[in-house]
Amino acid sequence: MAIEVKAMLPADVRRAKRRRTKHAPPGTAPGSVTIPDGALKPLVNIFSYDENSFRETAVTSVQAIQSQLSSAPDKKHWIDIRGFGDKNFFEQLADSFGIHRLQLEDVFNVYQRAKAEENHGYLFLISRCLRAENETIINDQLSLFLGKNFVISIQEKYEDLLDPVRDRIRSGKGYIRKSGADYLAYSLMDVALDNFFPIIEGISERLDVLQDALIENPTRDLLNEVLQTKRELILLRRAIWSERDKINDILRSAFEMISEPVKIYFRDSYDHSVHIVDLVESYKELTASLMDVYMSSVSNRMNQVMKVLTIISTIFIPLTFIVGLYGMNFSYIHPVTGAVMPLNMPELYSPYGYVTVLVIMAFVVVGLIYFFIKKGWLTKSD
Amino acid sequence: MAIEVKAMLPADVRRAKRRRTKHAPPGTAPGSVTIPDGALKPLVNIFSYDENSFRETAVTSVQAIQSQLSSAPDKKHWIDIRGFGDKNFFEQLADSFGIHRLQLEDVFNVYQRAKAEENHGYLFLISRCLRAENETIINDQLSLFLGKNFVISIQEKYEDLLDPVRDRIRSGKGYIRKSGADYLAYSLMDVALDNFFPIIEGISERLDVLQDALIENPTRDLLNEVLQTKRELILLRRAIWSERDKINDILRSAFEMISEPVKIYFRDSYDHSVHIVDLVESYKELTASLMDVYMSSVSNRMNQVMKVLTIISTIFIPLTFIVGLYGMNFSYIHPVTGAVMPLNMPELYSPYGYVTVLVIMAFVVVGLIYFFIKKGWLTKSD
Amino acid sequence: MAIEVKAMLPADVRRAKRRRTKHAPPGTAPGSVTIPDGALKPLVNIFSYDENSFRETAVTSVQAIQSQLSSAPDKKHWIDIRGFGDKNFFEQLADSFGIHRLQLEDVFNVYQRAKAEENHGYLFLISRCLRAENETIINDQLSLFLGKNFVISIQEKYEDLLDPVRDRIRSGKGYIRKSGADYLAYSLMDVALDNFFPIIEGISERLDVLQDALIENPTRDLLNEVLQTKRELILLRRAIWSERDKINDILRSAFEMISEPVKIYFRDSYDHSVHIVDLVESYKELTASLMDVYMSSVSNRMNQVMKVLTIISTIFIPLTFIVGLYGMNFSYIHPVTGAVMPLNMPELYSPYGYVTVLVIMAFVVVGLIYFFIKKGWLTKSD
Amino acid sequence: MAIEVKAMLPADVRRAKRRRTKHAPPGTAPGSVTIPDGALKPLVNIFSYDENSFRETAVTSVQAIQSQLSSAPDKKHWIDIRGFGDKNFFEQLADSFGIHRLQLEDVFNVYQRAKAEENHGYLFLISRCLRAENETIINDQLSLFLGKNFVISIQEKYEDLLDPVRDRIRSGKGYIRKSGADYLAYSLMDVALDNFFPIIEGISERLDVLQDALIENPTRDLLNEVLQTKRELILLRRAIWSERDKINDILRSAFEMISEPVKIYFRDSYDHSVHIVDLVESYKELTASLMDVYMSSVSNRMNQVMKVLTIISTIFIPLTFIVGLYGMNFSYIHPVTGAVMPLNMPELYSPYGYVTVLVIMAFVVVGLIYFFIKKGWLTKSD
Amino acid sequence: MAIEVKAMLPADVRRAKRRRTKHAPPGTAPGSVTIPDGALKPLVNIFSYDENSFRETAVTSVQAIQSQLSSAPDKKHWIDIRGFGDKNFFEQLADSFGIHRLQLEDVFNVYQRAKAEENHGYLFLISRCLRAENETIINDQLSLFLGKNFVISIQEKYEDLLDPVRDRIRSGKGYIRKSGADYLAYSLMDVALDNFFPIIEGISERLDVLQDALIENPTRDLLNEVLQTKRELILLRRAIWSERDKINDILRSAFEMISEPVKIYFRDSYDHSVHIVDLVESYKELTASLMDVYMSSVSNRMNQVMKVLTIISTIFIPLTFIVGLYGMNFSYIHPVTGAVMPLNMPELYSPYGYVTVLVIMAFVVVGLIYFFIKKGWLTKSD
Repeated sequence: MAIEVKAMLPADVRRAKRRRTKHAPPGTAPGSVTIPDGALKPLVNIFSYDENSFRETAVTSVQAIQSQLSSAPDKKHWIDIRGFGDKNFFEQLADSFGIHRLQLEDVFNVYQRAKAEENHGYLFLISRCLRAENETIINDQLSLFLGKNFVISIQEKYEDLLDPVRDRIRSGKGYIRKSGADYLAYSLMDVALDNFFPIIEGISERLDVLQDALIENPTRDLLNEVLQTKRELILLRRAIWSERDKINDILRSAFEMISEPVKIYFRDSYDHSVHIVDLVESYKELTASLMDVYMSSVSNRMNQVMKVLTIISTIFIPLTFIVGLYGMNFSYIHPVTGAVMPLNMPELYSPYGYVTVLVIMAFVVVGLIYFFIKKGWLTKSD
Repeated sequence: MAIEVKAMLPADVRRAKRRRTKHAPPGTAPGSVTIPDGALKPLVNIFSYDENSFRETAVTSVQAIQSQLSSAPDKKHWIDIRGFGDKNFFEQLADSFGIHRLQLEDVFNVYQRAKAEENHGYLFLISRCLRAENETIINDQLSLFLGKNFVISIQEKYEDLLDPVRDRIRSGKGYIRKSGADYLAYSLMDVALDNFFPIIEGISERLDVLQDALIENPTRDLLNEVLQTKRELILLRRAIWSERDKINDILRSAFEMISEPVKIYFRDSYDHSVHIVDLVESYKELTASLMDVYMSSVSNRMNQVMKVLTIISTIFIPLTFIVGLYGMNFSYIHPVTGAVMPLNMPELYSPYGYVTVLVIMAFVVVGLIYFFIKKGWLTKSD
Repeated sequence: MAIEVKAMLPADVRRAKRRRTKHAPPGTAPGSVTIPDGALKPLVNIFSYDENSFRETAVTSVQAIQSQLSSAPDKKHWIDIRGFGDKNFFEQLADSFGIHRLQLEDVFNVYQRAKAEENHGYLFLISRCLRAENETIINDQLSLFLGKNFVISIQEKYEDLLDPVRDRIRSGKGYIRKSGADYLAYSLMDVALDNFFPIIEGISERLDVLQDALIENPTRDLLNEVLQTKRELILLRRAIWSERDKINDILRSAFEMISEPVKIYFRDSYDHSVHIVDLVESYKELTASLMDVYMSSVSNRMNQVMKVLTIISTIFIPLTFIVGLYGMNFSYIHPVTGAVMPLNMPELYSPYGYVTVLVIMAFVVVGLIYFFIKKGWLTKSD
Repeated sequence: MAIEVKAMLPADVRRAKRRRTKHAPPGTAPGSVTIPDGALKPLVNIFSYDENSFRETAVTSVQAIQSQLSSAPDKKHWIDIRGFGDKNFFEQLADSFGIHRLQLEDVFNVYQRAKAEENHGYLFLISRCLRAENETIINDQLSLFLGKNFVISIQEKYEDLLDPVRDRIRSGKGYIRKSGADYLAYSLMDVALDNFFPIIEGISERLDVLQDALIENPTRDLLNEVLQTKRELILLRRAIWSERDKINDILRSAFEMISEPVKIYFRDSYDHSVHIVDLVESYKELTASLMDVYMSSVSNRMNQVMKVLTIISTIFIPLTFIVGLYGMNFSYIHPVTGAVMPLNMPELYSPYGYVTVLVIMAFVVVGLIYFFIKKGWLTKSD
Repeated sequence: MAIEVKAMLPADVRRAKRRRTKHAPPGTAPGSVTIPDGALKPLVNIFSYDENSFRETAVTSVQAIQSQLSSAPDKKHWIDIRGFGDKNFFEQLADSFGIHRLQLEDVFNVYQRAKAEENHGYLFLISRCLRAENETIINDQLSLFLGKNFVISIQEKYEDLLDPVRDRIRSGKGYIRKSGADYLAYSLMDVALDNFFPIIEGISERLDVLQDALIENPTRDLLNEVLQTKRELILLRRAIWSERDKINDILRSAFEMISEPVKIYFRDSYDHSVHIVDLVESYKELTASLMDVYMSSVSNRMNQVMKVLTIISTIFIPLTFIVGLYGMNFSYIHPVTGAVMPLNMPELYSPYGYVTVLVIMAFVVVGLIYFFIKKGWLTKSD
């Protein structure tokens, strides 16, 4: 049993991958862009589309982006950027689209809370993209700049969660090609939000397995799993609360970039985020129960150990006394005077003494076993 | 005792029925309707009524629904749909009544939070329908579309909670036939809400039984029952909070479809929902107490075990020492020289030695028993 | 000690009286009045008074009430009804005073939250009347309908808390005869609120007794008392929060029936309700502490038991080894060859062997007792 | 150690002084003034002052107060009343200054929450005055009526916290003589608020001492201290939250009696109250930790006891077995036939048998001690 | 292992440095400035700068400050004061800049909550400056007065966190020289806020180390570390909540001194503060888990101890009984009559008696070891 659970939950792997937030050193001027070492070279694709047409272009310069946008001003454009490794490129991008430096800093500082900030000419949106990989929760960031007819999305890694949206644009399925850039931004953030569900379901299943395993056999590895799950739920809660706040901001603020019909979709996202919040809180409570289950199982096992000790001791200690009693050396005949002392252990000199003692001891054992059965100590049930 | 409790609470059955939320895969276009495999073919009944007349019709097509509605524009119509198994039917229904695709998706996604959303021409309402069946809580969803003179209700299963309302319409009892479609929608949701009470009362009774059983004899099965009850309360809380929020929305928003006189009824529902919230929170607190009771009972039993061990050991260990003492082989007469050594265990050679030792041991036993009585260890009381 | 506590807190009595909420079956038409079986026949008294005159009349019909009211339109009238057992009477009363059927239903559904609802022509008020009787908390309901110059009060039982108000009207003491019907309604609700204080003080005293008793001797009965007290506090909290909300509603809403000068009195009630909320929350926290005290006392007692076992075992086990050692039968003289084997237990053949062993054992005992004293195990202090 | 702590924290004294709230019996007419038995005769001093002059007068009648006020209408007057024992005096005072009877009742009901209530012509203010005396927290009440040019302060006891303010008026230090009656009221309430700090610092120091003492040696007395401290913090929290609410009311409401420049001072008080709230919540959390420390120390001590038992038992039980083994009486020579039975315990007849057994037992002891050292059971460290 | 942890976390050092808040004695007139004994002489530097020029001047008098400000009215001036030890200087400063005495008092009362207060002509800002030094968290205060073209910063100690800002002004890097005094105030507070991150990361790492160490070997020192960390988190929470509230105030209030473009920067600070709040709350929850881990590890170790005792006792107690059995002295031949009593322990006189007993005992041992293996008590795994 324990082996299966461990196989399912390779804690070592997960812990090893726990990554720490890297902050710029305190006192750095705000708005400074720091590209982490070893960052991937940015891959830039532009999806330009309207209801009837669609074109996907790979570009490498900001100039190419701008010329693509100006060449088709009536289309919607998704500038899909993956990889951070080119500081110049991003500074030109910011200058070209009028992006505030503080927000560009936020893009690269990949542990921001989800948020929505309106600036002159665009809306800046951050989403948390969570996905489970090898039982680790990867917590990436999706940064969006939503303008009139474009969305710029920036992510750190090449692999991401957005392929379903790319496919929907390519295939022209759903409303995405008929709708504006705001619907595109919604779609991208909705994918990120939808990915909370499989993670939460994974945690829910793991908690079920853990509960059964803990009652069966409480081990330190299982305790570690519970603690690890609690950490993940704390992380999830932090992420989903910020998502919920962001969507609430979008619904309540009159952001110029988001049209009324798309707000209905965000209302749906809001319902989802509230649902996820509910689930995360519920599972956190269950995690607390599991700690109790662990403690009670440990106590139960101690009880088992104590019972074995007590049963064995209680049966044999009186017997040992009896046999010790008849191991005493009181003399029946005085070694010097030879006088018979008939009160000194006459049992020893009875022809049925030994048999009688054996019978008495048998009664003691039977009596104690009856006592233990009455106490319920010999039943397996608990 | 334990057997009765188990009979009352067949945990295995309940756990086996725990169903998981099925979400569409992340990235699916919003508003896509997915009918689960094996869904039941929809049964459609139209109740058309006014104060004086009533007609119940079973139909199978959206056209039949529309012709029924247009044939009696002054009556109220309840289009009562049970079963999801016909995608075409529902898409036609949505087109025919102008229902937003996101909301149609919510209808089939049966784990939505309760909510009220106004759209052009109708109010969309979701209620949680909880009922206990074989000790399992079944958590179904009732989706309503409330228009000027009609209510469309959609549910997944054939069996539901709405029969009392159907009977009230058929028999013409109460205000239901005299009132508008909004009162019908209220009545349907009120039935759903009323069904929280028997579930909560069942939990309350179960907690009483569990408390007594836990103090009597804390077993793992009882612990499982407590945890299971906690899970159910967490589920109930999630459901009732969303109901409460929904009714609050209805009371505060000026929904066009809900008239002032019917709002008084929703105010009553609101009081009920707040009352249920109070009860659920109270019982959740009691569940936490029961965990404490379990832990303390386990400790108490360990105490009992330890006391038995200690009493037995404390009585017999000194006795065993005494009999061991007189089992020593110090020689009274030197085996080689034959010299008498009068200091070597002269007790063994006294005519009353054995009797004296027996008396001493009896005193020891009486003394220790007196000690245990004084300590209160021999009383049954705790 | 334990006996006194039990006498003070007859838990069996209290638990036996725990009454369950009876709800109408789900799906019943809202506004249906259901009179419980065995309900008492209503006693109706009308107190008609103004500053100078006072008349108390017992009536039996709604007609008599109406004629009393119309005969003295300038006076204030308190229609004081106790007992539910006449459905016709209450339906006539509701028709005669224009009372909404939902609110009449609330009157008979005696587990409503406290609330204030304004209707056309009257204000509907519910208060929770708590009183301690034989250590049980009785949780009755007081329903008031406050009109321009009348108050209708309806209660289930004959005995109630309102006698002080009846006496104040009869004797003309205080402002009650000089003030309007709103002040009368305030006075009735204020009596109900004031009765929380003796209950809370009783709980506070009980918690003090329990804390001392738990530290002294933690028994299951005391644990039951703590849990029972926690339940009562949870009940009290539910009741007082609803009272607080009700009074807050009265203060914030511009209820037509409540004049400004009487609002000052409700402000005072509000302060009291907040004070009670504070106290209940405080005592709930103390109850949680008592669970901890119980657990720690149980641990302490286990510690005591273990110490006794350890002291006895630690003293006698080494002694038993020593006496066992000299009970070995190694031969000094070979039984066949008769050879002397001087290394085989020569101690046994020393004239001072036995005395030496006794002295050594005495040293061991003294040494161990010194060790236990140094460890602090022989002091009574904890 | 334990003795010092006890000397520092005389729990018996404190508990004995725990005073209970005395409420008027439920149903008493609101606004009834009840003077407790044995109340002190009121001492009345009037401080009449302006920037340049100051006069302190002891008076005994309300007439004297009024004539003092009318004789110097341009000065500020502090009517400083201590002692409750004259019902007539206070009723005349209320009539003379137009004080509402409900508020007069609050003055004598000395367990009111802190509050600020505006009435026609004056502002009614209640503050909680906490001070530590013989390790008990005394929780007195300061009631103020602030008018245009006067402050009436009423307290139950002669000794109070206000001497620093009296001295500042007498000496003319600070702004007090230059400022209006509102600044005087602020100063009086500020002294009360400032006195929370030494109490909280005392608790903070006590918690430090308790933490160290609990880790060292967890006794029931220390547990009582922790619980007592928790009670005090719960009391403090109740008091400071009401203070905070009161000051917030003063800042947000446009009370006629409080001028804008004095509001700046109340903003400062508000910061202090929030700071105290923060501290109290922090220390309450630490108290919860201390319960955990107690429980863990108790467990640790049990561990120590168990280790001693286990070490002693584990060393001696095998040895006792060995010596018992060679205490068996298997015959080497048959007593009847005289046949030699060489398989029956030949060790007993070897010349080195005894020595060999002693050596074997020495090895067993050394081996077990090595095992315990490896397990870390013989190190003192935890 | 334990040694490394201790080296990393020198608790003694830290506890020794715990400094207590020093409050002025209650009743002191508000606005009194008290300089602590041994305060450092103030070091005053003025940074006067605009986009193109920069000058740093050390001054010693308020006159010098004023002349520097009036000599360059178009520049921005940072009056950077470190050290409290000159009461006259600060009183002149307050008079010269119109600073309210209550706020000057707050400057020296170095345990204020972070806050922002607008006064006539300036904005008063307090920040908490936390830094870790020798594993102690130093909690200093930064007080700022922000005017049209100047910022006065006052700190108690010479060493502080502001060097990065000084360097940015000197080098002219970033926007600081181009922006107004409000941006300077923002920069100074932002440095203080940024310094929360390294502290929180330190705590996060310490919690990881502690979790592993606690599961490995739960000692009192580790428990102390956990409690110490909890205290630090409680302190951090107090500090960061007040920072968050302050920044929220700045964002919501229309403070005259803070321009719209700089508000964008404060919005960024607000996000940081919310992020820090989230992290602190998360780590506090983890600390609570660690207490549970400690308790469960202690239980586990007790389990280990008990198992050893039980295994040893259970194996040897039956064996000791057996050998005791054959140590009984029942006579085969009556010592007086010489009659053979063949039922008295015939085993002793069988030639294979001893060998048989040894074999039986071997079977008992093997059986018990099999039993323990089946119970899983001999595996190391938990």
